[in-house]
Amino acid sequence: MPLATRRAPGRPLLRHPAQVIVTAFAAAVVVGTLLLMLPVARPGAHGAPAITALFTATSAVCVTGLATVDTASYWSDFGQAVILSLIQVGGFGIMTLASLLGLLLSRRMGLRTRLTAAAETKSLGLGDVRAVLVGVAKVSLLFECLTAVLLTGRFAFGYDEPWGRAVHLGVFHAVSAFNNAGFALYSDSMTRFVTDPWICLPLAAAVVFGGLGFPVLLELRRLLGRPREWSVHTRLTVGTYAALLVIGFLFITASEWNNPGTLGPLHTPGRLLAGLFQAVMPRTAGFNSLDYGQMNDGTLLGTEVLMFIGGGAAGTAGGIKVTTFILLFFVVYAEVRGEHQVNAADRRIGERVQRQALTVALLAVGLVVSATLLLLGLTGLPIRDVLFETVSAFATVGLSTGITGELPTSGQLVIAALMFVGRLGPVTLVSALALRETQRRYTLPEGRPLIG
Amino acid sequence: MPLATRRAPGRPLLRHPAQVIVTAFAAAVVVGTLLLMLPVARPGAHGAPAITALFTATSAVCVTGLATVDTASYWSDFGQAVILSLIQVGGFGIMTLASLLGLLLSRRMGLRTRLTAAAETKSLGLGDVRAVLVGVAKVSLLFECLTAVLLTGRFAFGYDEPWGRAVHLGVFHAVSAFNNAGFALYSDSMTRFVTDPWICLPLAAAVVFGGLGFPVLLELRRLLGRPREWSVHTRLTVGTYAALLVIGFLFITASEWNNPGTLGPLHTPGRLLAGLFQAVMPRTAGFNSLDYGQMNDGTLLGTEVLMFIGGGAAGTAGGIKVTTFILLFFVVYAEVRGEHQVNAADRRIGERVQRQALTVALLAVGLVVSATLLLLGLTGLPIRDVLFETVSAFATVGLSTGITGELPTSGQLVIAALMFVGRLGPVTLVSALALRETQRRYTLPEGRPLIG
Ligand SMILES: [K+]
Ligand SMILES: [K+]
Repeated sequence: MPLATRRAPGRPLLRHPAQVIVTAFAAAVVVGTLLLMLPVARPGAHGAPAITALFTATSAVCVTGLATVDTASYWSDFGQAVILSLIQVGGFGIMTLASLLGLLLSRRMGLRTRLTAAAETKSLGLGDVRAVLVGVAKVSLLFECLTAVLLTGRFAFGYDEPWGRAVHLGVFHAVSAFNNAGFALYSDSMTRFVTDPWICLPLAAAVVFGGLGFPVLLELRRLLGRPREWSVHTRLTVGTYAALLVIGFLFITASEWNNPGTLGPLHTPGRLLAGLFQAVMPRTAGFNSLDYGQMNDGTLLGTEVLMFIGGGAAGTAGGIKVTTFILLFFVVYAEVRGEHQVNAADRRIGERVQRQALTVALLAVGLVVSATLLLLGLTGLPIRDVLFETVSAFATVGLSTGITGELPTSGQLVIAALMFVGRLGPVTLVSALALRETQRRYTLPEGRPLIG
Repeated sequence: MPLATRRAPGRPLLRHPAQVIVTAFAAAVVVGTLLLMLPVARPGAHGAPAITALFTATSAVCVTGLATVDTASYWSDFGQAVILSLIQVGGFGIMTLASLLGLLLSRRMGLRTRLTAAAETKSLGLGDVRAVLVGVAKVSLLFECLTAVLLTGRFAFGYDEPWGRAVHLGVFHAVSAFNNAGFALYSDSMTRFVTDPWICLPLAAAVVFGGLGFPVLLELRRLLGRPREWSVHTRLTVGTYAALLVIGFLFITASEWNNPGTLGPLHTPGRLLAGLFQAVMPRTAGFNSLDYGQMNDGTLLGTEVLMFIGGGAAGTAGGIKVTTFILLFFVVYAEVRGEHQVNAADRRIGERVQRQALTVALLAVGLVVSATLLLLGLTGLPIRDVLFETVSAFATVGLSTGITGELPTSGQLVIAALMFVGRLGPVTLVSALALRETQRRYTLPEGRPLIG
């Protein structure tokens, strides 16, 4: 299985990239668990039980946001700082590592030449790694700072929080939002801000930018006004993300419009804002300004579909990724139209990429169904809640109808495992599959959007 | 779109086979609806309302078995005879038409040469049609008579029914079983016979044989003891059907073992028999000897998976078909193993067939999810029951947790439409797609199991 087919200018660093990623994330979870078990991580004299620390650390590193305990009251300031660090490490880690894998995979993505002007190879040099690390750090810092400033101002001026507290709240939620983590310092997430656009809109914007992925952000910075020059990956990601956002907004708003437990009591602008917020969050941030426990079963199912699809590749979002979804859509579309080739965004989509997308999607379905069956057997909870919980965990979303805290230890372990596999499975699977491709037949320029 | 590429010995009969099938089934539904609206179809002076007649006729023609009214008490003997005729017409129709389409599609399936010894062409002559019609009629009559004799004997000797009534019961349930229709003359389906192997086993056997499909039955008759000579279609169908039967039996029995509403009160042999019966019926017959309304949510989800996969192609079963499912499994397996070719049962599976299987499966998922969202919006019923109902309708299974009778008219129309599309969609879609293939590249002998 040769990962480096030609000698690169720099030294090849990642010989088994999938192993590197899994090991790094597992190590972060272990360190986080140990830190959260320290007595100083909790108010009072005793530390958290191992299962609680493990679940929280996994949820933070995998930027999921599911929590069996109330983040604000259960953990001390130290504990919250650990959680925030784990979120930052997890979000930064997945963004950089997935971008590096994208570099390895994709000659046509354009990332390499723009980033390093290096020759087209299948191995990575130190220069690539440095460029990606610096690029992701800059992007993260930029968006997190912007969001934190806006939120801090609103907390200070709109809610009369003291400045120290306002900064604490602003920074925590900004980092949590950009990294699509969904951890909040309010026990009811963002429910109290449901009609406050000054809180909801910056959070939603940070979630969207983090969820589009680093390659897309990098390209948008250069070519924002020139969509004709966008790569196939950027076109598919932005187009699909936007379409799903509009569809999700219309669906959720219409479906919940008269529900007395959710949108019903709000005035019309409030309903629209809350609908928009709940349309952004399944992709895959996990904040909520409405109570999902009160939602219609139909809204939950629609939200599950959005969560499963997820966000952009090589970003902080989870799910099977929008490119995987839209590629399968184009495969079906081509087949129904009787076309031999599958085209998307003016590019032919190769058969291997089609099969990789199919593999990611079907394995994901199998994983979610298996985990749901297991959890139903372990808990006896209703399928309405359990299916929502497993899709949320797999896609590292963090939304819940409220059963997370009720899960027995065995159920918590299932969800923790699902978060870990959901976070790393699609990206490592696709890269492992794609890096193994040895023999490609070119008949037309081949488009290769990042999937998984 | 040339459907006849070479002139066949006989006159080409089916120029637009998909249209023929859809028209024929729609006509059968219309005729059945009109007959069931006659006052004579019901006890008393008044006929059934149009929606009830339409729903029942659609359910019968599509051999589904979902019912908004109690078949035994709501309809007169005439009405029951109409329903039985519709079942026989629907089951015979789908078996012959799907087999004829299989003939059109498949040069390698072996059906043509064995049946008619005609040259390999892509058009059908009168000889083909006659051979298939006679073959299906013989097979149906054989299995239905065998089952009816066994059932009638049991009803007469085991339950002291008068002979006329015993024959009535025996014939109705035998026809219903072989055609995978699931209509029963007991308001609680087969629940009262849950521990009676003399009723349950003949029914289950008839369901299995009807659900394997005509091409498989034809080949099994010739080559029963020589599995090495089976075609790829037969090998995949029999193997997958058997594997899913075993898995379903183990899963359902284990999952319901201690449920006081289902298996709990039975002795151990009764539990095993009931587990077996409930493992056969989702494929896709629709009789039940346990109350699905009382089942665990996990059992329902597992049953939904079995129903969605369904039975064999060109038989009376519904669903996406076992061959579609197993092909996708092999595609994923090959991709994960890094193999360029997808092989199943010692044959290479062509890329077009892979894409057709993917198309059928994904469109089916989209259809079921859309119908579920629609029905949730129309009824406000729990997702546990609605999802089970839509999967059951799509796969023409007929199992229900008991909400069919509670559906509003709009909901009944959705389910009726879903039964019709579920019955005809996969087979017509696949044949439309496959008949359009103009340009095949042969590199290895290509295996073409029937899918959809
Ligand atoms: K999240
Ligand atoms: K049925």
